[in-house]
Amino acid sequence: MIRNSNKIITIVGGGNIGSSWALLFLLHGYRVSLYDKHREVHSKSKKSIVRGLKLFKQSHNLDSKKIRAILYEINYFEDLKEALHDTNYVIEAINENLEDKINVFKNISQNVGKDTVIASSSSFIPISKISEKTINKQRCLNLHPGNPPYLLRFAEIVPSTFTSKKTLDRTKSLLKSIKLHPIILKKEIDGFVFNRLQGALLQEAYSLVNEDIVSASDIDLLVTSGLGLRWAVLGPFETIDLNTKGGIENHSKIMIPFYKGMFPKNKNNNFGKKAIKRVILERRKILPLENLSKRISWRDRTIFKLINLLK
Amino acid sequence: MIRNSNKIITIVGGGNIGSSWALLFLLHGYRVSLYDKHREVHSKSKKSIVRGLKLFKQSHNLDSKKIRAILYEINYFEDLKEALHDTNYVIEAINENLEDKINVFKNISQNVGKDTVIASSSSFIPISKISEKTINKQRCLNLHPGNPPYLLRFAEIVPSTFTSKKTLDRTKSLLKSIKLHPIILKKEIDGFVFNRLQGALLQEAYSLVNEDIVSASDIDLLVTSGLGLRWAVLGPFETIDLNTKGGIENHSKIMIPFYKGMFPKNKNNNFGKKAIKRVILERRKILPLENLSKRISWRDRTIFKLINLLK
Repeated sequence: MIRNSNKIITIVGGGNIGSSWALLFLLHGYRVSLYDKHREVHSKSKKSIVRGLKLFKQSHNLDSKKIRAILYEINYFEDLKEALHDTNYVIEAINENLEDKINVFKNISQNVGKDTVIASSSSFIPISKISEKTINKQRCLNLHPGNPPYLLRFAEIVPSTFTSKKTLDRTKSLLKSIKLHPIILKKEIDGFVFNRLQGALLQEAYSLVNEDIVSASDIDLLVTSGLGLRWAVLGPFETIDLNTKGGIENHSKIMIPFYKGMFPKNKNNNFGKKAIKRVILERRKILPLENLSKRISWRDRTIFKLINLLK
Repeated sequence: MIRNSNKIITIVGGGNIGSSWALLFLLHGYRVSLYDKHREVHSKSKKSIVRGLKLFKQSHNLDSKKIRAILYEINYFEDLKEALHDTNYVIEAINENLEDKINVFKNISQNVGKDTVIASSSSFIPISKISEKTINKQRCLNLHPGNPPYLLRFAEIVPSTFTSKKTLDRTKSLLKSIKLHPIILKKEIDGFVFNRLQGALLQEAYSLVNEDIVSASDIDLLVTSGLGLRWAVLGPFETIDLNTKGGIENHSKIMIPFYKGMFPKNKNNNFGKKAIKRVILERRKILPLENLSKRISWRDRTIFKLINLLK
């Protein structure tokens, strides 16, 4: 079998995240070598990939013949070296244990060409720690998908100070080729962006339950019938930009003081002026004020469609 | 014209929120008396209601004849007393100014029967302050819709310590009759639940921009392509319940320590044990562990449909 080495992706770890990566790459014409030292994981992983392919049947126009053909493109290995043969992009997706990750990164780096990118799917541990013992750290970064990874449409790319531009660029192109939006962090931060935003909301949600203000199920209902509907269509900044007459400039004058009063000060930058100024600048570049009402009509039509779909 | 007084809702204030309330009630067979002292607001409001009705044309099976008939059911008043004639439910939707609200509540209470409920649409100011000079405070509460109010599917009901059960029950039924989920807060808290959850996420989002971690537009993209997609389908608690093998019990063991480390302590109840225990109990009542994987398949299919709709 001749393998196109430009198209081989090696996934290290066959759990939920690893199998999801494999599914996404298979769907977009890549070959996948999946390593997991546990044989029983191989069959579980294969089953979940078959289930996943069925989900994409319509959207990717797959019949059973095509599905069989796709399944030929993944090979399972119990031996790491074999799984790394001819690869030029490796994604680690083992459990969230720093020591294990350090060791597996070191092993990978000893068995691939010096240009092969090694990415970690870790959702919390920064790459600077994980790549401690890796040869050629400039080819390492965090590549954090959402969960379920085969459904959410983005992945976070988090470089360390030593990650090369080439590594970053290759990762960006790779993500685009599997139809994920690359969200590039400019530097490392605990929890990255996705889990920091989720965590901030969860912290408040748990606090409201703790104070006996509202039930957990009412919080869930309020989000699915309100906040989440909006955030599926508009991000948090665009939401407030469209919610206030005169846009986010006025939101910052009218609403931010209220929000400030609600929360204890957070690291001396509680709704800091610098950030507010930056966000306003960005928003006005993306959407001039005179187009606000047009965008509001679009928002309404889109949320409306979404409600009809979900009911 | 004979008016069915059980069906008359008076809206005080003809801006965006007031007109949206009017639209919702009109759509569900109510008569609306809308008061605004500014005549020019009346015509603006009428225009926005006509625009709104067109949005609901398909879902509510409206032709132009029906729309004309619906528009007969709303009357505009420059005189508060007249607008309050025969009403049994009043919703205040004037600007967020405490003094103005106190006065308008006092005026309303002097001109309606003692059983007429008076609700405030305020998103921030608690009813205990607003109803300071109101006769019969037990019929007052906050009734806070999302924005856009004619689209989001919920409203927050916030009683004060003196709000009667009858007032609460009538408000709950009223909301259900216009197809909104009533989210009942057990007690007053600044910003209620909706804006506290939104504010917590915004605080973190602004902080990430302030620290130069990520751009505002990438935060928006990450939310629409990830967090928001999930939160339109599952609330924050159900999300983490389905995201972790073994459910939210395991999430609290594995992930909460990470989240705790990310944020400064928040009012001594940073992911408090009492709240975690309560949420687990609630979740297991709603969804037994053995049904988790079935629900995960449902989540995947639903998010998938949503992605196809939004792309």
